Amino acid sequence: MDKGQDIHAMMREIGVRAKAAAGALAFATSEAKAAALEAAADAVWARRGEIIEANGRDLEFGREKGLSPAMIDRLMLDEDRIAGIVEGLRAVAGFPDPVGQVMAEWDRPSGLHIKRVRTPLGVIGVIYESRPNVTADAGALTLKAGNAVILRGGSESFHSSRAIHACLVEGLRAAGLPEDAIQLVPTRDRAAVSALLQMVDFVDVIVPRGGKGLVGLVQREARVPVFAHLEGIVHVYIDKAADPAKTLAVVMNAKTRRTGICGAAECLLVHRDALALGQQVIDALIAAGVEVRAGPGLKGSVAASDDDWGREYLDAVIAAKLVEDIDGAIEHIRRYSSHHTEAILTEDDGAAARFFERVDSAILMRNASTQFADGGEFGMGAEIGIATGKLHARGPVGAEQLTSFKYIVEGDGTVRP
Amino acid sequence: MDKGQDIHAMMREIGVRAKAAAGALAFATSEAKAAALEAAADAVWARRGEIIEANGRDLEFGREKGLSPAMIDRLMLDEDRIAGIVEGLRAVAGFPDPVGQVMAEWDRPSGLHIKRVRTPLGVIGVIYESRPNVTADAGALTLKAGNAVILRGGSESFHSSRAIHACLVEGLRAAGLPEDAIQLVPTRDRAAVSALLQMVDFVDVIVPRGGKGLVGLVQREARVPVFAHLEGIVHVYIDKAADPAKTLAVVMNAKTRRTGICGAAECLLVHRDALALGQQVIDALIAAGVEVRAGPGLKGSVAASDDDWGREYLDAVIAAKLVEDIDGAIEHIRRYSSHHTEAILTEDDGAAARFFERVDSAILMRNASTQFADGGEFGMGAEIGIATGKLHARGPVGAEQLTSFKYIVEGDGTVRP
Repeated sequence: MDKGQDIHAMMREIGVRAKAAAGALAFATSEAKAAALEAAADAVWARRGEIIEANGRDLEFGREKGLSPAMIDRLMLDEDRIAGIVEGLRAVAGFPDPVGQVMAEWDRPSGLHIKRVRTPLGVIGVIYESRPNVTADAGALTLKAGNAVILRGGSESFHSSRAIHACLVEGLRAAGLPEDAIQLVPTRDRAAVSALLQMVDFVDVIVPRGGKGLVGLVQREARVPVFAHLEGIVHVYIDKAADPAKTLAVVMNAKTRRTGICGAAECLLVHRDALALGQQVIDALIAAGVEVRAGPGLKGSVAASDDDWGREYLDAVIAAKLVEDIDGAIEHIRRYSSHHTEAILTEDDGAAARFFERVDSAILMRNASTQFADGGEFGMGAEIGIATGKLHARGPVGAEQLTSFKYIVEGDGTVRP
Repeated sequence: MDKGQDIHAMMREIGVRAKAAAGALAFATSEAKAAALEAAADAVWARRGEIIEANGRDLEFGREKGLSPAMIDRLMLDEDRIAGIVEGLRAVAGFPDPVGQVMAEWDRPSGLHIKRVRTPLGVIGVIYESRPNVTADAGALTLKAGNAVILRGGSESFHSSRAIHACLVEGLRAAGLPEDAIQLVPTRDRAAVSALLQMVDFVDVIVPRGGKGLVGLVQREARVPVFAHLEGIVHVYIDKAADPAKTLAVVMNAKTRRTGICGAAECLLVHRDALALGQQVIDALIAAGVEVRAGPGLKGSVAASDDDWGREYLDAVIAAKLVEDIDGAIEHIRRYSSHHTEAILTEDDGAAARFFERVDSAILMRNASTQFADGGEFGMGAEIGIATGKLHARGPVGAEQLTSFKYIVEGDGTVRP
């Protein structure tokens, strides 16, 4: 048997065990799931020395591999960051359990009483890159929703993820839940990712967490449904009825608070009648160190080229364009958006309503920073990512979006005429 | 250019037009959509002569092709059946419009007000077999939810479907909605089906309506998400706490009311302590002309073989098996079910709760006939089919399940710290 077949067989075995665990998790009590997460949090804190030691090996490997300082920073764990992981686990433990929630119920003239009830999805595969804390975050959120999870961490964080995973398993064991509820793929071999993406019989959904390279690969190769966004090409439109002070505050925040996140603004659209305000905003962005690539009629740092429309910089760069009116802005967004998040700045309710109705992105904002595009800020407690697809999960994906549902129908010897 | 490329180009053109229509439909008013359906109903009735004539050509083609009497009956339209189509269109016109419904709304400490609002899915592809009325039903339901639809009818109902489709387009025109909102693939060539299944850039969901052959083909070949069920392997479990009168009524109805529908019972499971009742039910089924294929300990018409577990007969045949206890029944169902519909007959609330919790099928019933597994009976007005997948739509797929959602976030110059 060659190595590829070995990995395939190993992944299949992991799938079989995940599916069996999911069967038992579907009726695990809320108390048991919360206890498992609390015990895991205790274990992470108690074993922080081991985790930091394992992380040291990853850092060494990363430096040898020549990772950038930014990537080394993402990979690094210290006592503060471990405290953050512990806090995250306890927060998820305290969330309401979505499983068993009655989403709707009604009576029928036939005498039937019908309930629509939340159930777990089953088995979730999570594929991520260098951040070792995703091991805990993703494991906790999927468990909360009653799912089994197969975690596949980045090769850079291999040892750190294993050490954190051991703590999650300790939590499951303490709560009497199946240890296979949270499995970590025990190899760095990339063939394991390909195998996971094909496991339609064992995996219900794949969630990739990482850069465009990873997400694109998963979207192209997966035969299993994927919850993800490839890019956050976020547009902010300054309407003619925009309030200047709000506009200045919101655009600056949307672009500069953090430039590397998916909710950061990447393109500014300015109504022709708001030219003066638009130019003032652009000047402020330039003064704050942002490179503004401006279309005709606007003075930026440099002139925009056609490549700048529909581009995700993830950096201190923004494109800017003058549009004829709100419909010009909507048309530009429909053409170039990645359906993640867009914002309108306006005091005109009619303009806001038109924007909300005609732009079909997962998140639409009015007079608010696009950097609020986040499950925590939405009040979902935690998110496993943001999805831009139209099916099932859209926007921030929290515990509730990791569930399915079924119908419970009760009669009294009721037959259909 | 060869014929395959021709069809491919034609289907692409249909996709482009559907997507453009979907963009406009997303903000069509409820009144316009209802008016289009009412006008379509008027047109179907006014043009019933033409429709019956077109149907005559299909019947002739079908007889030449040697279709079975059952299939000829499914294909046939007379004035009564056309009145049924008209009634169906008017019923859907009267449904509440799901688009724009606020599914949830809440405030955040940041000052943001967040709403989760229903939106159309986009473009739906519906692939069906010989029943020409599906043209009207599927066209109406997808339009109601603000979607554009690409209909691909069976080759047997080609002329009937075209005649009905012309009436739907007349309705769209009368209401000022884009005519491309409801398109019918204008060829019998099977290459059009393959093309439709691959159109990830233009089609959001495929709904196949028909037998296992069609659904299996669609599920294997589609690169677009599919809402469907392959089979309805429906189990009815007689618990030890079953009420005899209810049990007899429910099982007889679940099997014999109509044997060819997906909600018909296909396997009877009998608790060892309910043996006498189970045997009485089996005797009644046999007396009603049902062939009972019984496992050890039960007296049926014939002995069951291993092939009888997990089998969909769609006929006056049922398998029957004695189980040790409720967990034996649950285990059998988990192994053999198609996740469509299962029922328990019991007066014991604890047993019902255990069954509901541990069986993961789209619809679970207690003391009620599985033949209620239907969108109309659920109060959804109409259904485009029943789905057994776990993502997005599950159970009967009505107008609401043909929608997606987006988040509308309102602030007042709100920025993220």
